[in-house]
Amino acid sequence: MFKVAVCGCGVVGSGVADILLEQREKLSARFNTEVCLGYILDIRDFAGTPYAPYMAKDVETILADEDVKLFSVTIGGLDFAYQLCRRALEAGRHVVTSNKEVVAAYGRELEQLAYDHKVRFLYEASAGGGIPVIRPLNICIYANDINEIQGILNGTTNYMLTGMYRDKMSFDAILKDAQAKGFAEANPSADVDGYDAARKIAILSSIAYGAWVDYNDVACTGIREVVYADHELAASAGYAIKLIAGSKMQDGGVQVSVEPKLVPKANMLASVNSVYNAVLTKGSYTGDTLFYGQGAGKLATASAVLGDIIEILGRPTVDSLPAFVSNNASVVKEDTAAYRFYVRFKSGFEEGETDEIASCVRATFGAGSNFIGFALADATLGGFITDYCTKQELAALTEKFTAVANVEIQYTMKVLD
Amino acid sequence: MFKVAVCGCGVVGSGVADILLEQREKLSARFNTEVCLGYILDIRDFAGTPYAPYMAKDVETILADEDVKLFSVTIGGLDFAYQLCRRALEAGRHVVTSNKEVVAAYGRELEQLAYDHKVRFLYEASAGGGIPVIRPLNICIYANDINEIQGILNGTTNYMLTGMYRDKMSFDAILKDAQAKGFAEANPSADVDGYDAARKIAILSSIAYGAWVDYNDVACTGIREVVYADHELAASAGYAIKLIAGSKMQDGGVQVSVEPKLVPKANMLASVNSVYNAVLTKGSYTGDTLFYGQGAGKLATASAVLGDIIEILGRPTVDSLPAFVSNNASVVKEDTAAYRFYVRFKSGFEEGETDEIASCVRATFGAGSNFIGFALADATLGGFITDYCTKQELAALTEKFTAVANVEIQYTMKVLD
Repeated sequence: MFKVAVCGCGVVGSGVADILLEQREKLSARFNTEVCLGYILDIRDFAGTPYAPYMAKDVETILADEDVKLFSVTIGGLDFAYQLCRRALEAGRHVVTSNKEVVAAYGRELEQLAYDHKVRFLYEASAGGGIPVIRPLNICIYANDINEIQGILNGTTNYMLTGMYRDKMSFDAILKDAQAKGFAEANPSADVDGYDAARKIAILSSIAYGAWVDYNDVACTGIREVVYADHELAASAGYAIKLIAGSKMQDGGVQVSVEPKLVPKANMLASVNSVYNAVLTKGSYTGDTLFYGQGAGKLATASAVLGDIIEILGRPTVDSLPAFVSNNASVVKEDTAAYRFYVRFKSGFEEGETDEIASCVRATFGAGSNFIGFALADATLGGFITDYCTKQELAALTEKFTAVANVEIQYTMKVLD
Repeated sequence: MFKVAVCGCGVVGSGVADILLEQREKLSARFNTEVCLGYILDIRDFAGTPYAPYMAKDVETILADEDVKLFSVTIGGLDFAYQLCRRALEAGRHVVTSNKEVVAAYGRELEQLAYDHKVRFLYEASAGGGIPVIRPLNICIYANDINEIQGILNGTTNYMLTGMYRDKMSFDAILKDAQAKGFAEANPSADVDGYDAARKIAILSSIAYGAWVDYNDVACTGIREVVYADHELAASAGYAIKLIAGSKMQDGGVQVSVEPKLVPKANMLASVNSVYNAVLTKGSYTGDTLFYGQGAGKLATASAVLGDIIEILGRPTVDSLPAFVSNNASVVKEDTAAYRFYVRFKSGFEEGETDEIASCVRATFGAGSNFIGFALADATLGGFITDYCTKQELAALTEKFTAVANVEIQYTMKVLD
C-alpha cells in the first residue's frame, strides 16, 4: 500500500488528485502494490466532489497513517509549504513538490534532510512545468559536463511576446488579454519582471553545474520595455524575441540572467510559441538537447509531479548523493562578456537617409554591425545589430553614435548566439 | 567497485569507453563507489591507445571478474550481440545496449530475462541516439495515456532532406554527399528506405502504449521518390518535408508507419534540420512534449548509454515490472483513416491555365483542397493538397482527376496534422 497525501488542492494539487484517481489501476499494476490517493490536505471541504472522501485538515492525522508514504506538496507560498516539507521528511516520508519558491530557497537543505532520513525529495514540476528536464539532467545526460542552459521558462511572458507580435499589440493590451484568459495574475510582476523564470533557471543551473545558484543572484530584466516595433525589426533580420532564462559556465564562474533576447530563427527556441516552454542544454558529449512542452497548467504540471511519484515507487531508496548539496556556485555578477546587441533608436534623420544611418552604424559599431531599417509600424523607430562588444563598450559606442547622428537610443537587447 | 565491460569498440563503444575514462571521478563521487571501465571486448588490440590495457578477447574471462557489474553491448548486428546480452543477463550482470536491431527483435525477451535474474536491461541509446526519450516515457510522463508519437528518428535521411532543399539537389547527388561525409552507408537502404526508423518507432511505441509492436508490422516508405520540386511546393504552402516515424492509437489498434510527410511549419518537427532528431509525444495530461537532440554520433549516443549506466548505479534493483513485456499491440495494417494528401503531378496544361487547374482540383478533391502552383525548378511539375480523404478515396479521386485534366499524377505524401 502506497498512499499519497496531496497537500493543497489548488490548480496543480487537484490535477495530482485527479490523475491518482484516474490511473490507480495502471500504477498499482506496474508497481505491484496498491498506489492511491490517501488524503487531501486543504482548508476547504470540496463537499459533493470526488475529493470529499479524502479531505483532511491536519498534517498530524495524515502522518499517523503509516500507509502514507509520500507527500505531494502543491501548496503555494513559502513558509507553510516549507515547514510541511520539513515535517514530512523528518517523519520519514518522501516529498515531491511543484513549489519553485520552496525549491529555489530551501531545495538544498530539504534535499539534505531527505538524504539524512533515507527518503527522497523531488521537484521535477518546479521548473518547466510538465516538461521532463530535471530527471534527464540528473540521470540521462548527467555524464556530460553541461556548460550552458538557455530556456523559455515562463509561459505568461512567452504568450505575451507571441501575441504582441502576431496581433500587433502594446504591452498593456497584451497583458490585459493574458489576464482575461487567466495566463497572467492581477499583479503580473513575478512573470513579466522575470522573477519566476529566475527561480527556475537557478534550480536548473544548480543541478546542471552541481553547485548551488542562489536565485537572488540572477540578473533579471523583464519584458515591460519590449514594443511591437522590436518584433517587426527583429523578424526582418531573422530573429524572434523571447524572454530567455539562461546560464553559462565561464572562466570566472556562472553567468546567469533572465532577459529578453533576439533568438536566431535557426535556433529551436525561436519556434517555441504561446504558453509553451523549452529548455536547451549544451553538453560536452550530446551537444544541443532540447526539451519542449507545456510549462504550466493543471494537468501538465501534475503529470510532472506524478513522474516524481513514479520515480520514487521504482526507487524508494537513494543510492547516490543528492543533486545539488555541494558547493556554492560562483556567480559572475559583473557581465564583462562580449555580445552582439540589438539597438532600437528614435530617428531624427530625414526620410530616405537610410544609407547615411547604415554607414554611420557601421562606422561606429564595427564591420559586423548591421542596420536593419525602420519599423513599418512606426517609421520613426529604427533598429540595428552591433558587432560583438561588452556592455561597457556598448554604452561608449552609443554615446559616440548619438553625438554624430541625430538619434535617441531607446532600448537594447542582447542577441543569443 | 562497479566495473563496466564495453563490448564492441566501434563508434559508440569507443565513445562509452572514452566517457568512462574521462568521468570516472565524477561518477565515483556521486555513487560512492569506484565506477570504472573494466574491460573492452573486441577482436582488435588497439595497441598504443588508451584502450589497450582493457582489451579482452573472451566473454568468460570478463564474467569471471565479480567486479564487472554491467555489460555495455555496443556491438552491431543481431546474433552475436543478442547471445552476448543473454549470457551477461543469465550471469546476473546488468546489460545496456545501443543495438536497436537486438532491442526491436528481442527486447521483450531480454527484459523478461533481466527481470527473472534481478538485473536490468536498458536501451536508451537504441532510439533517438543521444536524446533522452525512453526514460522520460517510462517515468516522467508515464502517468499519461500516450496516444500518439511523431518522430524524426533517422539522422541520415533528415540530413538528406534538409540538404536536398537547401542546395537544390537531386536524391542521387545528396546521397553521394551524405556518403562522402560519413552520414550514409555505402548500402544506404536501412536509412533511406526507412527500416532503421521503423525499428526505432516500434521500440518507442511498445513503451508508450505498453504493448509490443513488431517492427515488421511498420508500414515503411523511404525518401527515394522525393524531389527538390516537392520541397519548393511544400514550402510555398507553409510545410517542410520530413521522414516521419509515427504511431497513433486508434479504435482498432496502433497505426504505425515511416513515410515522408508534409509537416506544417508551426509544428516544432518542421524546425528539426540536418542530422538532428526529435520525438514528439502526445499525452493525455501533458499534451505535446518534444525531445530534440543528436540522433546519432559517437559521443552523443555514448552519452545515452552512460545515462542507462547512471540509472542502474542509482537503482540496481527493479521494483517495477518491465516496460513492454505485456500483450502484443494490435497493429492496424490497412490504413483506412482520412488524411490530407499532397499530390505532385506533371502538367499537360498550357502555360497560364493555373485558374483552370485550381478549379479542377477543387471540383475533384473537395472544398478544402488547395492548388499550390507550379514549381519554379521545373515548371511542368505542379502540386496541390487535398481535402481529408482515405487512401482508397484518393486513388479514386486522382483517377477521376486525370480523366478530366490533362495531367499525370507522379507522387503523393500525407500531410501531418
